[in-house]
Amino acid sequence: MQSTLTKELDRLFHPASMAHVGASDRENVGRFNFTEYFLKMKFPGRIYPVNPKYQEVLGLPCYPTLADIPGEVDLAYISVPAALSVKVLQDCPPGKLRFAVIHTSGYGEIGKEDLEQELLQEARQRGIRLIGPNCMGIYSQEGRIGCWRSHHEIVEHKGSVGFISQSGGHALDLLQGGPDSDIFFNKAVSLGNQLDLSINDFLEYMGADPAIRVIGAYIEDVRDGRKFTELVRRITPEKPVIVWKGGITARGKAAAITHTGSLAGNERIFASALQQVGGILVTSLEEFRRVARLLQPEYMPAGRLLAVLSPGGGNTVSICDHFASRPFLSLPRLTPETERRLRQLLPEENVDVANPVDPGATGLAHFRELLDAVAGDPNIDTLLFVLHVEFMEEIKDENMRFAVSRMMAKEFGRINSKGKPMIILLRQLRQNHERLDSYRRLVLKDLHERGVPWVDGGFEDIAPVIEKIAMWRTYRERMAKGGTEQ
Amino acid sequence: MQSTLTKELDRLFHPASMAHVGASDRENVGRFNFTEYFLKMKFPGRIYPVNPKYQEVLGLPCYPTLADIPGEVDLAYISVPAALSVKVLQDCPPGKLRFAVIHTSGYGEIGKEDLEQELLQEARQRGIRLIGPNCMGIYSQEGRIGCWRSHHEIVEHKGSVGFISQSGGHALDLLQGGPDSDIFFNKAVSLGNQLDLSINDFLEYMGADPAIRVIGAYIEDVRDGRKFTELVRRITPEKPVIVWKGGITARGKAAAITHTGSLAGNERIFASALQQVGGILVTSLEEFRRVARLLQPEYMPAGRLLAVLSPGGGNTVSICDHFASRPFLSLPRLTPETERRLRQLLPEENVDVANPVDPGATGLAHFRELLDAVAGDPNIDTLLFVLHVEFMEEIKDENMRFAVSRMMAKEFGRINSKGKPMIILLRQLRQNHERLDSYRRLVLKDLHERGVPWVDGGFEDIAPVIEKIAMWRTYRERMAKGGTEQ
Repeated sequence: MQSTLTKELDRLFHPASMAHVGASDRENVGRFNFTEYFLKMKFPGRIYPVNPKYQEVLGLPCYPTLADIPGEVDLAYISVPAALSVKVLQDCPPGKLRFAVIHTSGYGEIGKEDLEQELLQEARQRGIRLIGPNCMGIYSQEGRIGCWRSHHEIVEHKGSVGFISQSGGHALDLLQGGPDSDIFFNKAVSLGNQLDLSINDFLEYMGADPAIRVIGAYIEDVRDGRKFTELVRRITPEKPVIVWKGGITARGKAAAITHTGSLAGNERIFASALQQVGGILVTSLEEFRRVARLLQPEYMPAGRLLAVLSPGGGNTVSICDHFASRPFLSLPRLTPETERRLRQLLPEENVDVANPVDPGATGLAHFRELLDAVAGDPNIDTLLFVLHVEFMEEIKDENMRFAVSRMMAKEFGRINSKGKPMIILLRQLRQNHERLDSYRRLVLKDLHERGVPWVDGGFEDIAPVIEKIAMWRTYRERMAKGGTEQ
Repeated sequence: MQSTLTKELDRLFHPASMAHVGASDRENVGRFNFTEYFLKMKFPGRIYPVNPKYQEVLGLPCYPTLADIPGEVDLAYISVPAALSVKVLQDCPPGKLRFAVIHTSGYGEIGKEDLEQELLQEARQRGIRLIGPNCMGIYSQEGRIGCWRSHHEIVEHKGSVGFISQSGGHALDLLQGGPDSDIFFNKAVSLGNQLDLSINDFLEYMGADPAIRVIGAYIEDVRDGRKFTELVRRITPEKPVIVWKGGITARGKAAAITHTGSLAGNERIFASALQQVGGILVTSLEEFRRVARLLQPEYMPAGRLLAVLSPGGGNTVSICDHFASRPFLSLPRLTPETERRLRQLLPEENVDVANPVDPGATGLAHFRELLDAVAGDPNIDTLLFVLHVEFMEEIKDENMRFAVSRMMAKEFGRINSKGKPMIILLRQLRQNHERLDSYRRLVLKDLHERGVPWVDGGFEDIAPVIEKIAMWRTYRERMAKGGTEQ
């Protein structure tokens, strides 16, 4: 059953009509031309530019105030200077507008709490719910709403990740960097000052939204921590909630002034509370991206019993250093049967049939059998394959390279379809090398087509990512069995 | 004054003649064709293939044994099966050969200590110094010696990094991945089982070698830890020694069998001993590469008083989280004069003149003045500039993009030349995007040409790298003032 909030916010992300107050033909430096973005997004509903200075904006009839628009407006982006925002709402009759994104900054974040409260009062009197102020607005893939000049480039990509952000910049970076990195967003919201609608409102909404299968949140402070934790507790048995907490150190930008010294302890309490209810805490943009990508529903989540297949004896030591040192992960010994099978398949020298398995200079001989042997081992529940982009350079013929990339992706996909997650760790050591860049993109394209999850970075970056996912998977399994969080 | 060892090893890295025992025309799977590599490297001295089966190998006269070669041989690569290696040495008259790289594995590492000892005895009787067995050999840029099929691609690049490795794979990965990532090697050695020449021998040699300005070592175990530490102590006041320690966890590949439980404690002692003598401990290939790149003598080492210039409020919080949480690093408040100057230069909204400085949507207006204002601040000794490759995409005209990349690199280089290190943190969020890949390479090319140091990765990866470099710089300064290590 849908709650009132859920029904209400559904309208926000699927509006029938949108206005842009402060519209103009030109995109000024530092000013966003939302009218243009809505047009580029091919928003299917009505678009109403609002500005008393113009008759027409970008070919659309322009209205002096919200009141002049015929009929109701579901969502208005308001990008006029802060001092004018109250007037914009005052000009709007009650019942005319459902939601307003107050884009402009210059409110509570610079001490103008009075202006902010006035804005809230005017909105409440008119039944308008506010997003912001000081925010970027929302993104809705299905609703075709964006808030950045290149969102039309990503909106064709269906996705199931929802993102709630206290930083507009992080939201834009993540959205724009999504599809080319196999992270597909369904909805996102930049919260700004949370004058009215808050993180908990959107968390509750996304928790109930069947289109969203993974929730991410970037937060710097939680105002109602108890409710936040309770919401996470309710959601995580079904879908993962990834929380990227910013401002974790005592010396943060604002923290330097207001909370010096006391934050570190609170952060530990927050981390522990979040973990208890199955939430996933990450500490950076890069880690958020890695975790979110792997948790998308088209992939199976990694478990804690890993087998790693990686060429090179030095690498297997490094894998042990970084993976086996994580308390929740294990690299179990493979069964004697698996080790025997690997000995049959691999050359005699410079290989290792113990986990991590080092196939040595075996190349692509027995590639399929090798994967089957390791993936079939009953001691492990997840297979990690370390693929160096440099390996593709050893295949001199272009058609052969295409074929090898396709074949590998197909075999990886086959293992995945058998029920054990198979993750590719893609490594590229040379940053300024055109051919390697193209081989990386070739491999990524094929992995994408076969639905094979991948992750890039060093072992030290990847081990905590796998561990966090495995912890959530274990939590979910325990809850499914009727367990309780600890 | 050169020690005997130094003089001796100089000959190893600058031989006048080389032999390859086990030569053949063909490169077999898993077998290295060193003769071919020497030819491709255009080794300027004499090359003698040795194999009783052939009259000629790759167009060169082939000799049945080492004894048949006319005159002396400085260095022989021996790649015959382990069982035949003793015979190879027995066939060699005393005084004929100075150094032998025993490439083949199958000795002590699989329990054949007797064979290994026999080999050592035969070598000693003939005055032959051994590298290996079970190793890749050496790389010498000036001597034009390589040990991998593509080393001729890197040998034209002069460099000043020396690398000593207990893993042949890591050595090959690092060497091959060097020039395209602005890491330039002078010499490297793969140690193998260290039957004769050991890590300490090469550390002493590289410490005294004026061509080497940065020393790196990958080690899994240290046999004479006291001597190792003493050598590091002697070297670090002049040149940095970066130690990548593998096998740090109790559950290592070999550790699983032999040292379970006891290693973790020893690792802490090792780390602490190394730090006391000014050594730099890193934990992964990626971290080694980041630290080694920045420590090359063409760049100034980073200090501990950082100013960070980065667009986006969310990013400045993240920078605080990762940089200000490092105990040795500091992001000092800029002087009131600097803040005033920044306020003049930057727009009024969505900027931050406190450190980290957020220039907001200022674009390239006042770029030069902005850098000068921050770099000139007396409170800081190092400037970190966060450059998103995505920024280049906003410049639609190709010639303009070229010009901007050149201009930025030139200005960065200008700041560097004034005596404060200026490091570029290059971030690229999209992995499967051809244009962004090309923009990244464009920026890297220009940074290289202007001698500007850069580093890539997330803030969480870079902060410890900067900290480790700053700690060494501080150690060096203390020692230069006649201080002692703590």
